[in-house]
Amino acid sequence: MIKIYGKNCIYEAIRAKAKLKTVLISDFVAKKDKNICDILSKNGYDYKIVAKEKLDREYTTQNQGYAAIREDYKIYDESYLNELSNAKRILILDGIQDPHNLGAILRSVDAFGYDLVILPKNRSCMVNETVAHISTGAIEHTKIMYVNSLLTAVTKLKAQAFWICGTDAKGTVECKDIDPSLRLAVIIGSEGFGMSKTLVNQSDYLITIPMVGHVNSLNASVSAGIVLAMLMNRDSE
Amino acid sequence: MIKIYGKNCIYEAIRAKAKLKTVLISDFVAKKDKNICDILSKNGYDYKIVAKEKLDREYTTQNQGYAAIREDYKIYDESYLNELSNAKRILILDGIQDPHNLGAILRSVDAFGYDLVILPKNRSCMVNETVAHISTGAIEHTKIMYVNSLLTAVTKLKAQAFWICGTDAKGTVECKDIDPSLRLAVIIGSEGFGMSKTLVNQSDYLITIPMVGHVNSLNASVSAGIVLAMLMNRDSE
Repeated sequence: MIKIYGKNCIYEAIRAKAKLKTVLISDFVAKKDKNICDILSKNGYDYKIVAKEKLDREYTTQNQGYAAIREDYKIYDESYLNELSNAKRILILDGIQDPHNLGAILRSVDAFGYDLVILPKNRSCMVNETVAHISTGAIEHTKIMYVNSLLTAVTKLKAQAFWICGTDAKGTVECKDIDPSLRLAVIIGSEGFGMSKTLVNQSDYLITIPMVGHVNSLNASVSAGIVLAMLMNRDSE
Repeated sequence: MIKIYGKNCIYEAIRAKAKLKTVLISDFVAKKDKNICDILSKNGYDYKIVAKEKLDREYTTQNQGYAAIREDYKIYDESYLNELSNAKRILILDGIQDPHNLGAILRSVDAFGYDLVILPKNRSCMVNETVAHISTGAIEHTKIMYVNSLLTAVTKLKAQAFWICGTDAKGTVECKDIDPSLRLAVIIGSEGFGMSKTLVNQSDYLITIPMVGHVNSLNASVSAGIVLAMLMNRDSE
């Protein structure tokens, strides 16, 4: 079970028909947002209206007056790599550690229509309540897989005609040079160290984001957002 | 004075010749990163080598073994709006509140060559140590201005032939449709509420980022990064 909180998180959980127990709505929200109680009832969820202080104590103060205990998010395992016949876009996160980054990335994954996010079991941020909150509910609509070996996963993707798009400051290809009709698996490196050398070597393209500044590095969730947006499969619009 | 910490923040402060006092380097870093002590000495900075625990107590545990007290960052005031004859790209943040977002945005501002960031004095995150840290030193290379009225600032920019590019989910223009040779002032709205109506009405273009997902909203620093990257003035590469 996982604590979720915040208006968007709760609304998206309802929309995704997630199993929720102990849904709590603050008295202030119950007056201001007439919809929420109706929607909860119509969808068969029990809820309690409670004082804001109770929510602030049990959840963080970022609860906005909406909170629940949710069943664990479905996490896919490697066998799902055999069920990707309709997938066009996959994101691989090679060592993202910060829950704020992972949460923000999941919003982009949903927004740009990516079919799956793959992370290594080691060296990765796990799906926790901060990730869920920062994703503002986008996590309800994204498929997440943790694997033992990214190399094995990449090998399997290549066998299914995915083109592996690494990202690196030393890359030589820009997003606009990549044929958007291809099946693409984009790799984003870790916050401190970028992509592992093994995956750089596996990449069919090594993408760079043109920059002109002094520091020449972006926040990992910003890099991911830029590349995902630029490589979006626009057929699915 | 402001506390700064983290490897990149300290290196960029030195590179920007910022006034620093009480530069502290952990004993571990002093052994591992031989450069830092040389560079500090060569640039005329005094420093002390101290136990990591002292840094962790006085700074956050994210100090990475590098910390200093820095003079306050230079904040520009409205009079600088009269000195923009060479500027091509300006970013306006209409109510960004989260220091993580502001810090990440400053990295993009530097990376994509934006000449100035304008924020309203009310309703904005101020420049604090979290912003500096998250910017990984990019803040040393960005010009930041707080103004009483964004409307007044926008009016002054229009008078200088800047095209005002608002961003909104209901926008009708994509970045690729905008002539990159124009002088552009991009507006990013606040985390919860987007752009104010007043500024929507002032916009020459209302930009949208095409999305295909369920939640259809991005983290504010991710939206900013995408738009700044797509509208970068590539002449300056």
